[in-house]
Amino acid sequence: MPACKPLQLRGRLLGAENAPLVCVPLVSRTAAALRDELVELRAAGPDLVEWRADFLESIPDVAQCLAIAKQLQAVAGDLPLVFTWRSVAEGGQPTSIDAASVSEINTAMAASGLFALIDLESASDAALREPVVQAARRSGTAVILSRHDFTMTPSVATMLEWFTLAQSSGADVAKVAVTPREDEDVLALLTATAQASRSLTIPLISMAMGARGALSRIFGHQFGSTVTFAAGLAPSAPGQWSLPALRAALASLSERDVAR
Amino acid sequence: MPACKPLQLRGRLLGAENAPLVCVPLVSRTAAALRDELVELRAAGPDLVEWRADFLESIPDVAQCLAIAKQLQAVAGDLPLVFTWRSVAEGGQPTSIDAASVSEINTAMAASGLFALIDLESASDAALREPVVQAARRSGTAVILSRHDFTMTPSVATMLEWFTLAQSSGADVAKVAVTPREDEDVLALLTATAQASRSLTIPLISMAMGARGALSRIFGHQFGSTVTFAAGLAPSAPGQWSLPALRAALASLSERDVAR
Repeated sequence: MPACKPLQLRGRLLGAENAPLVCVPLVSRTAAALRDELVELRAAGPDLVEWRADFLESIPDVAQCLAIAKQLQAVAGDLPLVFTWRSVAEGGQPTSIDAASVSEINTAMAASGLFALIDLESASDAALREPVVQAARRSGTAVILSRHDFTMTPSVATMLEWFTLAQSSGADVAKVAVTPREDEDVLALLTATAQASRSLTIPLISMAMGARGALSRIFGHQFGSTVTFAAGLAPSAPGQWSLPALRAALASLSERDVAR
Repeated sequence: MPACKPLQLRGRLLGAENAPLVCVPLVSRTAAALRDELVELRAAGPDLVEWRADFLESIPDVAQCLAIAKQLQAVAGDLPLVFTWRSVAEGGQPTSIDAASVSEINTAMAASGLFALIDLESASDAALREPVVQAARRSGTAVILSRHDFTMTPSVATMLEWFTLAQSSGADVAKVAVTPREDEDVLALLTATAQASRSLTIPLISMAMGARGALSRIFGHQFGSTVTFAAGLAPSAPGQWSLPALRAALASLSERDVAR
């Protein structure tokens, strides 16, 4: 089995041997709703919770985001939080905020120490990304460098390049999410993940999105993907299963009585 | 999606759109135990039942096999039965019966009209196989030509050749079962299945055996495998899930609330 590497979150290793970590997104649009959403999702037992801040209904400033982050951290306790402002180009919500302002918010969130992980896009402007990465280093926040394609699945070589570029750019975790047009595109994503899992040292997250890619959300772990995403109150990307359905499927797999 | 083709069993089309047919093996060693086993398995609701006659404790003659077959058919009703005498070379039980005697039994079973399908090995002696195929044609029994590798997984090209050879040899169904040594071997089996599904006209059955291949038993249908095998009272090959576990996993997949 390609080594599925655990996440290292402030010295704590997270990532079971035989099952993926399950991350659910917070997609509410206001501070109060986000708090309620986290209370509800926490009870369902995810391993990680990602705040998708691009879902906020009003464009926030740094102070507002910090206030929400503190509130979420108080509810989360030792449940690790991920901060993500997904750009429109890679599947985020439409917004009029500019990249420099997003970078400011990202930098403040990375510096706050309130998040275990922060997700940045490897295709984003490196000059705007660098201060975020520096702030994350100082606060001990792990950096995910991610790359998404919502229209197609590139070649295995290109996806391997994306994983590799994330590591060489200093990521603690490399993430690749693609959209299969053919069923065999799902196999390509898993092949690239397995290859990257052997050639890289950092943990990986990968998925083939949409209904066609469902198997990658269940079996990606076998090929080296440490984390799988499930929908909480609502999905944040196409193809996410509800958390209970994903847990049920994973449980039915782990309880199976397989003849060897 | 590569077209997953239905089985044609005496003019009846079998094979749901969104889920594989589930076949369980009968592996009891005596006539009485086989009858009890079928009564019990039938209640669990498989789509097909395969009598693995090589499990019989005493080497039978044609008359004994016919008597058992009639008894099984009486219990099965409209549940389709598959007759299989698996050779030792392809994973069957150790036996002292010679290939000519197996061919005689196969011919009688094919001629009896008691089975919906009969499984023959494409690597077997064509001269011994031909009378069986002729008898099957006359009685309207569908012929599966199968090929197994219990030690490794050949290249995609070789597996595609196996599927193709089965069709060109007159099979109604082509089956390929291999043993993954690496996780990527499972992807190779699914790739070959998808390719064969596009290039051939007959339905396919494929699986990667052993615990490593589990995903192929759940998701093989997406790549063109019409049938998946589950263990009944006992597995007949490595990696078969129990029928309840497989049904639970398939149900959790079909009930999922996937965001598109």
